[in-house]
Amino acid sequence: MDSKTRPGNKVVVETAEGKYVGIVMERPELADKEHIVIKLDNGYNIGIRKDKITKIQVLENRTSHEEYKPKKHVADPSKPTISVLATGGTIASRVDYLTGGVHSAFSAEELVSAVPELEEIANINVKQVFNKFSENIVPSDWVKIAEETYKEIKKGVDGVIITHGTDTMHYTSAALSFMLKTPVPIVITGAQRSSDRGSSDAATNLIDAAVAASTGNYAEVCIVMHAESADTHTMIHPGTKARKMHTSRRDAFKTINGEPIGTIENRKITYSRRKNKPRGGECGIDAKLEEKVFLLKCHPGLSPKIIDSLTDMGYKGILLEGTGLGHTADNLFDSIKKAIDSGTTVAMASQTLYGRVDMNVYSTGRRLLDLGVIPCEDMTAETAYVKLMWALGHTKDQARLKEIMATNQAGEISDRTLFE
Amino acid sequence: MDSKTRPGNKVVVETAEGKYVGIVMERPELADKEHIVIKLDNGYNIGIRKDKITKIQVLENRTSHEEYKPKKHVADPSKPTISVLATGGTIASRVDYLTGGVHSAFSAEELVSAVPELEEIANINVKQVFNKFSENIVPSDWVKIAEETYKEIKKGVDGVIITHGTDTMHYTSAALSFMLKTPVPIVITGAQRSSDRGSSDAATNLIDAAVAASTGNYAEVCIVMHAESADTHTMIHPGTKARKMHTSRRDAFKTINGEPIGTIENRKITYSRRKNKPRGGECGIDAKLEEKVFLLKCHPGLSPKIIDSLTDMGYKGILLEGTGLGHTADNLFDSIKKAIDSGTTVAMASQTLYGRVDMNVYSTGRRLLDLGVIPCEDMTAETAYVKLMWALGHTKDQARLKEIMATNQAGEISDRTLFE
Repeated sequence: MDSKTRPGNKVVVETAEGKYVGIVMERPELADKEHIVIKLDNGYNIGIRKDKITKIQVLENRTSHEEYKPKKHVADPSKPTISVLATGGTIASRVDYLTGGVHSAFSAEELVSAVPELEEIANINVKQVFNKFSENIVPSDWVKIAEETYKEIKKGVDGVIITHGTDTMHYTSAALSFMLKTPVPIVITGAQRSSDRGSSDAATNLIDAAVAASTGNYAEVCIVMHAESADTHTMIHPGTKARKMHTSRRDAFKTINGEPIGTIENRKITYSRRKNKPRGGECGIDAKLEEKVFLLKCHPGLSPKIIDSLTDMGYKGILLEGTGLGHTADNLFDSIKKAIDSGTTVAMASQTLYGRVDMNVYSTGRRLLDLGVIPCEDMTAETAYVKLMWALGHTKDQARLKEIMATNQAGEISDRTLFE
Repeated sequence: MDSKTRPGNKVVVETAEGKYVGIVMERPELADKEHIVIKLDNGYNIGIRKDKITKIQVLENRTSHEEYKPKKHVADPSKPTISVLATGGTIASRVDYLTGGVHSAFSAEELVSAVPELEEIANINVKQVFNKFSENIVPSDWVKIAEETYKEIKKGVDGVIITHGTDTMHYTSAALSFMLKTPVPIVITGAQRSSDRGSSDAATNLIDAAVAASTGNYAEVCIVMHAESADTHTMIHPGTKARKMHTSRRDAFKTINGEPIGTIENRKITYSRRKNKPRGGECGIDAKLEEKVFLLKCHPGLSPKIIDSLTDMGYKGILLEGTGLGHTADNLFDSIKKAIDSGTTVAMASQTLYGRVDMNVYSTGRRLLDLGVIPCEDMTAETAYVKLMWALGHTKDQARLKEIMATNQAGEISDRTLFE
């Protein structure tokens, strides 16, 4: 079978479920070995389990690949310089037009060959930090990205781009927001559709990320991704207020309980947020994290035993994603009290996503406050979870933690007057 | 202190944090005893811990309450008849103008006295099922509500209203959608602001719920709540597609991955959904549930030990709220496999809320499918959680469960063509 499914071959694959005609794609190193992927004529890729294939017929044999020749990248001292830190994900690919397959593209030369517009915007340094789907990124990876970003900024670049899978991009953007003080824009971008598809958002997002990193006059962590399902403009979301809000659309990211920094159209930024921190100021890193924190989504029937287990397992923090204004069932109160008494910090965000936690309105909230649960204002649960890890990395003192969580550190808490 | 804080008294309360002037409110039975609540002149209520009060000064003493006289409710045979089942929550209250306090209002007479418009719309039966804040509602309560609703429909009423706290209203609406076959509208409603506040949505929501229950030409479970922050119209959300999306706004409920059934303005329904199941047909109840199901929100750093613990604790189902198209970190795969091998059903929804789970696009998804994880299409995690409990109440056979979860039962799975 292996010679028949050589990447680039045009094949007819038959399984019990159906018959598929397309080009066999090269698989990234991370991929499993049990499937082949073929690109159908309509441009979509389909994965087929090898052991389900009943017959393969080769329509066209590709015995050699066209040689891939990266374009030489020449520095232009009149242009700003930005660093691209690659961490993996759908964006980390270029088209191999012969096979339709996806390769990693990480050298400056390769990146500029794949997206030549980048060279018009800035001089590009490229470094691969690691190569992971973002669903596999763990808190210690945030520390690595923060350290690499800090190093690039120290070199004096005009901005940093971090390419990243979209699944957990907003957790990473929140983490970097808390960890880094920056005099230049730190722009996280990615792609919802891989660059081997006609509808890919990889190039537009990368070009606009380069515009934001090199010319943006704001010094903070942000996400640049498509603003609507067409290709006309992208949006700059603040790092602590962004959230992936759709499984597949290119405009999956939204600013929640806040204002987008601005939009980018035709390589020009239009600012929309009322206040911006302009370029300049301090460069610093403070990446201490307590990793033993759990994000617990409350739901009807949630057993208090789960909270007891987390306490027994030595968790230092529990971020409750409560209901409504910041509530849990009252049968959890004893376990929450036990957790807090044993030194676990318990904080509260809301599963409604929009709006602000307010635990003074109903007795449920007031009783939770009395137990020592810390309200997380209008943070998303994801940002509150990351902030709690970061806060616990600095202190275990309850009063100090309450103060840190209630005080705006990196744009994660909006002014009450803006949205209520 | 107790004579000074008699409900109705106008007082000045001093604490270390500040000084508050307002009317002492009567507290519902469910409330804790450690606080008093006073209504400030701006209409907002504030809870103050009794042990933090340094001084109380009484400005006006109320020694007697105006007698409350419920209006007599007279049946009108020319009007439709609806049943109101009360379960608690913010809506379950009427204004006591003397004290500004909140009482439960559950007799037909009291309800019609509080909201006289109801009598113009329909003849009203009222029954209190229980009196709980919705954060305390557990799956067995859904069964009770389903049984009481079924009884009312069997009596031949033209529609049923269920008043309910808003925090977990969408979990209950999903549960009733799976449990009940109905020939008449079943309308769940509530209030985001209590009826002792000028901005209360209680009356409008209740009136429009009565319009929907008595005149709506659709036979299913729905939620009727404010459509925007003003008072002009309400929206009818399908029971399996609704979600509370704001902590405090009156238009907190939204239809996710679907179309609202319609809107109500000036007591008139405008239908907006392309397909409706009209009144009539079967009346049935199938309220079997497996309660041992867990809703697990995936997050960076989530330890596989948690899944092992759930398996060890005998959970029959785990609803994963995964990232993106339906992903988890690959370090969870072994624990997920162990869970499935030991008979736990594992299903997947997405924390993006919007969009459809598609586990065929990336190798992460394909590997999870191979482990036996069941994709939940475009259901919200909340609806998928409830459906998994309901499905497991009927069978433990994996193939049958996969079929039930993938097949539309109550509007929870949208046609692909509508939203992609």
